[in-house]
Amino acid sequence: MSKTEVETAERPKGEEEGVNVVGVGLTSFGEYPDRTTRDLFGEAAQKAFESSSIKRDDVDMVYYGNFIAELSELQGHQGPQMAQAAGVRAPATRVESACASSGAAVREAVKEVRNGESDVVLVGGAERMNNMGTAGATEGLAAAADALYEIKAGVTFPGAYALMARAYFNEFGGSREDLGNIAIKNHKNGAKNELAHFQREIDMVDVLEAPMVSDPLYLYDCCPISDGASALLVASDTYAKEHGLDGSVSIIGTGQAGDSLALQNRKHLAKTPATTEAAREAFDDADVSIDDVDAVEVHDCFTIAEVMALEGLGFYEHGEAIKAATNRETTKDGSLPVNLSGGLKAKGHPVGATGAAQIAEMVKILKGEHPNAPENAEVGLTHNAGGTVASTTVHILQK
Amino acid sequence: MSKTEVETAERPKGEEEGVNVVGVGLTSFGEYPDRTTRDLFGEAAQKAFESSSIKRDDVDMVYYGNFIAELSELQGHQGPQMAQAAGVRAPATRVESACASSGAAVREAVKEVRNGESDVVLVGGAERMNNMGTAGATEGLAAAADALYEIKAGVTFPGAYALMARAYFNEFGGSREDLGNIAIKNHKNGAKNELAHFQREIDMVDVLEAPMVSDPLYLYDCCPISDGASALLVASDTYAKEHGLDGSVSIIGTGQAGDSLALQNRKHLAKTPATTEAAREAFDDADVSIDDVDAVEVHDCFTIAEVMALEGLGFYEHGEAIKAATNRETTKDGSLPVNLSGGLKAKGHPVGATGAAQIAEMVKILKGEHPNAPENAEVGLTHNAGGTVASTTVHILQK
Repeated sequence: MSKTEVETAERPKGEEEGVNVVGVGLTSFGEYPDRTTRDLFGEAAQKAFESSSIKRDDVDMVYYGNFIAELSELQGHQGPQMAQAAGVRAPATRVESACASSGAAVREAVKEVRNGESDVVLVGGAERMNNMGTAGATEGLAAAADALYEIKAGVTFPGAYALMARAYFNEFGGSREDLGNIAIKNHKNGAKNELAHFQREIDMVDVLEAPMVSDPLYLYDCCPISDGASALLVASDTYAKEHGLDGSVSIIGTGQAGDSLALQNRKHLAKTPATTEAAREAFDDADVSIDDVDAVEVHDCFTIAEVMALEGLGFYEHGEAIKAATNRETTKDGSLPVNLSGGLKAKGHPVGATGAAQIAEMVKILKGEHPNAPENAEVGLTHNAGGTVASTTVHILQK
Repeated sequence: MSKTEVETAERPKGEEEGVNVVGVGLTSFGEYPDRTTRDLFGEAAQKAFESSSIKRDDVDMVYYGNFIAELSELQGHQGPQMAQAAGVRAPATRVESACASSGAAVREAVKEVRNGESDVVLVGGAERMNNMGTAGATEGLAAAADALYEIKAGVTFPGAYALMARAYFNEFGGSREDLGNIAIKNHKNGAKNELAHFQREIDMVDVLEAPMVSDPLYLYDCCPISDGASALLVASDTYAKEHGLDGSVSIIGTGQAGDSLALQNRKHLAKTPATTEAAREAFDDADVSIDDVDAVEVHDCFTIAEVMALEGLGFYEHGEAIKAATNRETTKDGSLPVNLSGGLKAKGHPVGATGAAQIAEMVKILKGEHPNAPENAEVGLTHNAGGTVASTTVHILQK
């Protein structure tokens, strides 16, 4: 669907401002134990300003996503700290929704611009975990699950997603090779992304010979522990036009939903209704249909998470996305390219940065500025999930 | 100024929904080391629902303020957890802005309702600190300051506010007795508040014989380490009218501003420009003037903070609020009653709960349902500050 068709479609709130992504900035993702989140976010924000002609004084509000700087740096209250790191004097609020922190921050930014509260918002996120060591980071990440009912019972995230994968296999089938093909695909995409944590391809031998992490998940089913930051400058249509900014990519839909924090309270371990609800809201909001989507970035913290995301979003029926990568439907040249950035698996997952980073990557994809960009992609969807999908945000972008 | 006069005044955004506080719930504040934040917020939310006829299914969004549950309970990702504790199935986002966390959450809720994104929002906050012990809580609270440039140099919050108090005394004068009169006033107010952490009066002998904490601040200049939770149900005019809810108290203005996180980057240690900026925005937004305000709740984490708040808000010139309590201007029967709830000093300061709790108290004050309520108060202001006022929110309420 072209932009013109969408614009002339009936929109429920005709008075709202369009929300343009007029600047993007990403650090490379990787292991930077000596870099503070302030340092990382400052770099991402600097890049976002360099990619746009927006003056720092024109930023009206900052939303910043971070998950566990209290644990990694004994640093809370990062809103004003990050505004300062970005050289911006504006009110700044930190949003935390575990791995969906900056997805939730972007949602606040979208509403802020859409409703005319702000003309320009700086939004993004950062995370630093490698300074905590692997055990410390694993314990820190566990704060996204239920501390009382899950973590005290010994579950960490690889274990929680292994439970979901096992439930999926039991109900719908699937194999280690099917999951492996997702990792192989995402590594292949990441190999072309100069900002990715892992810029190398893997093959099925690597997958099958890898050590087990939590059965049925093995090393290449798991995203890495990454440090990094992301920043977006979003501006209203009015501001973008007045200032001659490139408003070619807009965020046209936003959705958010929640679920019980603990897996024990879910009806089904291998379905993620929060994803479905957030997607429904985002599509209603955007006034485009799922068939219009040309490229997708989903929250593949584990390979099985990509499967559940594609089903939850509605691209596949339950039980069918497990074969999507195996059947080459979600590869770069497939009918629905998924995680062209490399995904969390290969691009990396600096938790608080991920949601806004997905949008930054999608902006490049839609503009054709990404090495993996398909030709003529016009509509992209990003899906960011917290914990075991206890919180989700979905955003729809259009060129 | 009566409500009618305000309503007929020119409002910049005539299409916006009014934001009514239709339910409030507070736990008692105190030392509850064995109660989780989930338990505390669940109680506050339950009370909020009991105070209103709103059905849980009608809640469209949850904003929740918390500062350091990652440290006190190894629990992040509290948005969905708190929605579940409240019995609400709606998207839920945690907002963190140190001691201004739930003030910032309320601001998001106000915008959400005002702009028609939601009809009903559950907003509040919780904090649990006494399970950490005094040293642990002090270290945790320090995460609101700059970990690298302040905390590593040995400063904790009593020390930071002592620096501000010393700078104030050096420039403007003032005495221990002046600060003591603020504590005496707030304890006197708190003695009538059955939910307050300290429900007893103190006198000048108590003040002067108290141990020094960080010169020139002594024990009674410091708020306690409290556990507790707050919850508000806010609803649009349209929803409130349709459902026959008591919409007699509205939030008519919101403001937020930030400053450098570290004191070292401030121009003046005894002035808080973020308070001034947030107040200016809130008054512009509310379309009432400072002379219309009948009662104030300010963020008196230390007695000197009440002084700087009253000056920053514009109720006093710089250097003049230090005598306000001594001159009985801010007492219950004074010209500008301040912290009728008991303030953070006596009511207590469960960090993430405080901003929304101030509003809950102000709603009771304006409705005449508070033991300390003045007669005929119509306009109230609440001021919530994070760290050393590196972030501030100001809200204006009207009956």
